[in-house]
Amino acid sequence: MRFEKDTIEILKKALIKMEDGFESLPGVDTDHDLEGTEQVIMEVAERMQDNFPYFHPLYAGQMLKPPHPLARVAYMLSMWINPNNHALDGGRASSRMEKEAVAQIAEIFSWKNSLGHLTSGGTMANMEALWISSKLSPGKKVLASDQAHYTHNRLCDVLGLHFESVPCDDEARMDVSALEEILERENVGTVVATIGTTGTGSVDPLPEMIELRKRYGFLLHADAAYGGYYILVDNLSPGTRGAFDRLHEVDSIVVDPHKHGLQPYGCGCILFKDPEVGRFYRHDSPYTYFTSSELHLGEISLECSRAGASAVALWATQRLLPMVPGGEFAKGLSKSRDAALWLYDKISSDGRFRTILSPELDIVVWAPNGASASEISLRSEELFKAAEKRNLYLAKFKYPSSLLRAKWKGVDFDQEYVTCLRSCLMKPEHFDWIERIWTILAESAV
Amino acid sequence: MRFEKDTIEILKKALIKMEDGFESLPGVDTDHDLEGTEQVIMEVAERMQDNFPYFHPLYAGQMLKPPHPLARVAYMLSMWINPNNHALDGGRASSRMEKEAVAQIAEIFSWKNSLGHLTSGGTMANMEALWISSKLSPGKKVLASDQAHYTHNRLCDVLGLHFESVPCDDEARMDVSALEEILERENVGTVVATIGTTGTGSVDPLPEMIELRKRYGFLLHADAAYGGYYILVDNLSPGTRGAFDRLHEVDSIVVDPHKHGLQPYGCGCILFKDPEVGRFYRHDSPYTYFTSSELHLGEISLECSRAGASAVALWATQRLLPMVPGGEFAKGLSKSRDAALWLYDKISSDGRFRTILSPELDIVVWAPNGASASEISLRSEELFKAAEKRNLYLAKFKYPSSLLRAKWKGVDFDQEYVTCLRSCLMKPEHFDWIERIWTILAESAV
Repeated sequence: MRFEKDTIEILKKALIKMEDGFESLPGVDTDHDLEGTEQVIMEVAERMQDNFPYFHPLYAGQMLKPPHPLARVAYMLSMWINPNNHALDGGRASSRMEKEAVAQIAEIFSWKNSLGHLTSGGTMANMEALWISSKLSPGKKVLASDQAHYTHNRLCDVLGLHFESVPCDDEARMDVSALEEILERENVGTVVATIGTTGTGSVDPLPEMIELRKRYGFLLHADAAYGGYYILVDNLSPGTRGAFDRLHEVDSIVVDPHKHGLQPYGCGCILFKDPEVGRFYRHDSPYTYFTSSELHLGEISLECSRAGASAVALWATQRLLPMVPGGEFAKGLSKSRDAALWLYDKISSDGRFRTILSPELDIVVWAPNGASASEISLRSEELFKAAEKRNLYLAKFKYPSSLLRAKWKGVDFDQEYVTCLRSCLMKPEHFDWIERIWTILAESAV
Repeated sequence: MRFEKDTIEILKKALIKMEDGFESLPGVDTDHDLEGTEQVIMEVAERMQDNFPYFHPLYAGQMLKPPHPLARVAYMLSMWINPNNHALDGGRASSRMEKEAVAQIAEIFSWKNSLGHLTSGGTMANMEALWISSKLSPGKKVLASDQAHYTHNRLCDVLGLHFESVPCDDEARMDVSALEEILERENVGTVVATIGTTGTGSVDPLPEMIELRKRYGFLLHADAAYGGYYILVDNLSPGTRGAFDRLHEVDSIVVDPHKHGLQPYGCGCILFKDPEVGRFYRHDSPYTYFTSSELHLGEISLECSRAGASAVALWATQRLLPMVPGGEFAKGLSKSRDAALWLYDKISSDGRFRTILSPELDIVVWAPNGASASEISLRSEELFKAAEKRNLYLAKFKYPSSLLRAKWKGVDFDQEYVTCLRSCLMKPEHFDWIERIWTILAESAV
């Protein structure tokens, strides 16, 4: 296979256009060591061959999605300026592009007057959400499901907040009666609803959680880092759709453009429904914030120096592929989900395999058959390797035995976790390749 | 002026080399909208003209330094793989390059057995340092000078730690007697030594702080985000050199490769002298950490998904420009400092201006003369604009009147802050352009 290289010509043209803006400046003599640079870069290229082929449809493993070529070229172009979106003094154009791009993301959740900004990733975005929650309801507990990302538990420890995890039902969604039991006995300030767990793509039952909020009063934070963009598609199951339809009712949303938004790492995004929370960020910097009375992004974010290039790449992508239902971007997500459903059907009707959940988004988790948890785990390891030999790249996933007992009758659960296989089918191309993926998988399982 | 574009040809060659590693994979048909991509990118290029020329020697303002062309091309190349340095499953080659690059940074501080990793920036790096400090000395106070970066005060609030700021002496360094006074009355767990304030480049008196540590017992964290690399140069003043010579005795160091390490945003780095602190990061992720028993960087960092491209760019830069005293990289820093000293001499011997401090690193802060704080501030604003009209880009800086009273005798301090001018002379090219910069400045001040 060959890499896409057409965008390099576009980059050259764009550099010429961009430098027109600086034509009044005198030329600068530089004597960069081009020979040395080439030598090192060729060494880098050789070392970088040692990677799974994340960009290829036959990589159907971990949660990795290649950036759109447009996002890549926009990011590259920006690096000639290397703007810093902390302040307008560090990046006027990219700060404005960030504000526009973030407003467009807020719009897919029907938020018109929210406060938000980009972050370098999901950890910082979720941390800001939990931090603001703790300011709004100090001293109270934070809850998230036991299938939520481990970052919530750890961030609460970092922030000095009390955390408790809520058991999940058999569909890996937060168990609402378990949630209510905790709400009864604890002083809960914030509940995290995971909109697409990173493990199985399960979506917490948001409508029921919103009902409980009416009775118990707490802040709802949606960790939609992975799943958020799925609000745009037309092929969700009614239950999952029901959760997305209520997403606009939460207090804060995290969505990672570097997960499903076609962006290179690191690009996260935090949105707050109530723009008034901006007051908690306030600080006084003596050396920035001078150029204008316009908002500097550093006034509403915890991070200081931050790549403006991420904002430029995101803005450009959303310009080419507007985030509207029925648009090309939404169709790409629908295809990923169709690919997941197709593969799930094949696997679950094949006696050699066991499945767990019908995919809510685009992740399929399954395992080869076996009499015990340990045997199934061993066979997962073997299948992982056999597939890799045939150029099909899967991921492994430790699934709690406790969530499998009711589903896998007759299996001897002789260990706490079962190693399963997991495919995040995040690339639109996965749909076109799914029969081939299945063929290789079926061959590997012999 | 024209942008450097020679590295684009190197990128093309490297892409061909890199794809050789994936030649066993079948080709993929794609139909990217090249025309639409070009249209959007040209629009981006036009919008990006609206920026200060950070890359040009006549930009002598805020703390912005362009990435080395090699760093840029390495970052670009990596984006075709888009590795995620959270786990080896997300980026084998780039994780190893990160470990090598971070070990090389630790070495400039003479640390052979430390624990460290890259972060997306200085905020996260300093937060990890303060968080680990709070684990090692729970419930105790954190101190930093009142010229330290505002992030320390705010991060302590975020982490739920008690913070107090220590007054500075007239050189904008932490006042050691004020520090001792606080150590006497408070239960202090951590003292932050700023090794190069972002305002004036002042270096806290580390030797005296280490003496106090013997008597009072506290953790020392060095925020060397901006100044750390200056340990490599041969032209520091004896006092400043004395601080750098003791840097290896602190407990943790933050240094930002995206400030003085020739890297694009966002690239920070945190180092801990005692690798045992890794235990505080421990967590259990069910879906990553599978490929090997080798260390996954996500096991020793707070951030989860994180750009492997930053590590690749850093590794490549350090490969071409090893961080050794007398090397090309160190010489570049020395030139920046020489440029700052040269400009400081010119300004301080010109009756139209007032200076404040002899630069410890490469930042010069000064102001036009005037009878009062308000008049000086007004004239700074005017000079800022007059210079910009002549293509010289300065920065403005609010300096506390309290630190100026002893220096600027006879000035009527009719307001709390004085707006001064500030030049971060971070580019090696600044040295070659410094006479021209001075000429424009002198003309603008007429």
